[in-house]
Amino acid sequence: MGQAGDYWVGFDLGGTKMLAVVYDASFQVAGRARKKTKGYEGKKAGLERIVNVVREALADAGVEPRQLAGIGIGCPGPLDIQQGIIHEAPNLGWKNVPIKETLQKEFNCPAIVGNDVDVGVYGEYRFGAGRDANCVVGIFPGTGVGGGCVYQGKLIQGKNCTAMEIGHIQISSEGAMDGAGNCGTLESLCSRLAISSEAAAAAYRGQAPFLLKDTGTDIANIRSGALAKSVKEDQAVKKIMESAIKHLATGVVTMIHLMAPDVIVLGGGLVEAMPEFFVTNVTKCVNSRVLPAYRDVFKVVPAELGDDAAVMGAAAWAQEAVKATV
Amino acid sequence: MGQAGDYWVGFDLGGTKMLAVVYDASFQVAGRARKKTKGYEGKKAGLERIVNVVREALADAGVEPRQLAGIGIGCPGPLDIQQGIIHEAPNLGWKNVPIKETLQKEFNCPAIVGNDVDVGVYGEYRFGAGRDANCVVGIFPGTGVGGGCVYQGKLIQGKNCTAMEIGHIQISSEGAMDGAGNCGTLESLCSRLAISSEAAAAAYRGQAPFLLKDTGTDIANIRSGALAKSVKEDQAVKKIMESAIKHLATGVVTMIHLMAPDVIVLGGGLVEAMPEFFVTNVTKCVNSRVLPAYRDVFKVVPAELGDDAAVMGAAAWAQEAVKATV
Repeated sequence: MGQAGDYWVGFDLGGTKMLAVVYDASFQVAGRARKKTKGYEGKKAGLERIVNVVREALADAGVEPRQLAGIGIGCPGPLDIQQGIIHEAPNLGWKNVPIKETLQKEFNCPAIVGNDVDVGVYGEYRFGAGRDANCVVGIFPGTGVGGGCVYQGKLIQGKNCTAMEIGHIQISSEGAMDGAGNCGTLESLCSRLAISSEAAAAAYRGQAPFLLKDTGTDIANIRSGALAKSVKEDQAVKKIMESAIKHLATGVVTMIHLMAPDVIVLGGGLVEAMPEFFVTNVTKCVNSRVLPAYRDVFKVVPAELGDDAAVMGAAAWAQEAVKATV
Repeated sequence: MGQAGDYWVGFDLGGTKMLAVVYDASFQVAGRARKKTKGYEGKKAGLERIVNVVREALADAGVEPRQLAGIGIGCPGPLDIQQGIIHEAPNLGWKNVPIKETLQKEFNCPAIVGNDVDVGVYGEYRFGAGRDANCVVGIFPGTGVGGGCVYQGKLIQGKNCTAMEIGHIQISSEGAMDGAGNCGTLESLCSRLAISSEAAAAAYRGQAPFLLKDTGTDIANIRSGALAKSVKEDQAVKKIMESAIKHLATGVVTMIHLMAPDVIVLGGGLVEAMPEFFVTNVTKCVNSRVLPAYRDVFKVVPAELGDDAAVMGAAAWAQEAVKATV
């Protein structure tokens, strides 16, 4: 059953579900549990559900709290990473959530919070597509465009906040508005949401007959799988996707010029639905525009860990952070 | 005279001059020497001049080579930082310059190469405007736009090359061509060269009468001092400068969203000629556009070390690098 202090918990707080996974010392899964997040029940009830899902994962693993070495937490929204407080959890309506303190008190072990995308990229660095790289940049186009960077074994973070808000870098003077109200950002030009809304307009205009018939014009339904099918059938959607990928490549070029990563990991549902299409097109666009010194010294690869990246990365980042403080 | 291994040399290889400074263990200047670079004499003669200027600085300091702990070298152009080779030195016409090996052999101590802007930013971090910051980003608009970043005490660099090519990030779909042939980059929109050429056109059109009379329309003459005077007299040049600063601020916003720096150091001749104008306008522009979590947690400051940033930073970075390998 392992010694005291041998197990790590990874926890991922999502908008609709929360997931806790218990890992042994070699990061093999020992147990897991999942619950609906139910943000509408409020912060207090939410923190109780969080504690309970960790308890259930421990029970599933047959592990006692005293056997825990630490808990890693992947959180959405702006965070205070020192205090371990979520300032504001988008989609949940919770404010100033003391998630670190709650879990530390309850399970009597260190708890480390990080941005959910950041810890996901750290997961890919430790166990997935970015293993052993000097520098990994991860970019995940979804409703927004998430990003993270592991540089020489450490996540790039601010003093009290997270960093690597890759979706919010401005790459163009044009483009629709993004979630933060800015135009021409990576998020406004190549998030899955931006692509879906352009594809919906093409379908409405009759330029994407397959998509129109298959899915309709409600962007809530035009998700990654629908886009992947439509790209093969609708020329207009293929063009939209290629244009979005050119913008994504601009963001990748910026990240290469700044961080000189050896590995760029692309992930998220849209990339998972058409990994070849993304990797090939992004690589081609980037190599044609990056400064000569940076050409061909990087590789673009699809993420390997899927939905488990955040929990696994959170647990491993907790291990790294606890090690650093010893 | 100090023990053996107590002194550090900082060396800066510029397009027109080379500078070597000897520092004691507490980084007080012990001696210095300067020579013209004379790139046209070729690589072999150049390496000899480099060795000789270091010798002269040592003689000026009354320090023997055996008293050296290491030499730090700030170089222009694409580098192999491991091998210590300058792939190509712009303006000098030298290729594959083995500067690290040459100095190590000659002075029998470790030599560490870095990009000249990078080591300058490291100098500001250790001794100047960015002292004790968790993360310092430096941006230096000149002929290009140089940049560097010290994150948690270390320069951000690639495995074999440098990084933080801030001037080459794309921030707009518009703009003239930069030195690398790309449009809409920070360099194409807010380098001193970009500003000078716009100002020259305004002068030629009769919209900048002060500049026309004071300097004329040759952009080789429209340098930082001339621009600083013209900004006060010519409305058109003031507008050009404000527009360039808005673009510069876009680059700063990107760096804040990515690195969450606590200090942004602006430097170079143009900033030195009008530090207030730059700091005030960049701060205002950035605060109006950065995500709420990053607002007011950074400060924008002018560089403090001037021309000595690179030599001092190179010497200190050599100390840091030698320490890390012990």
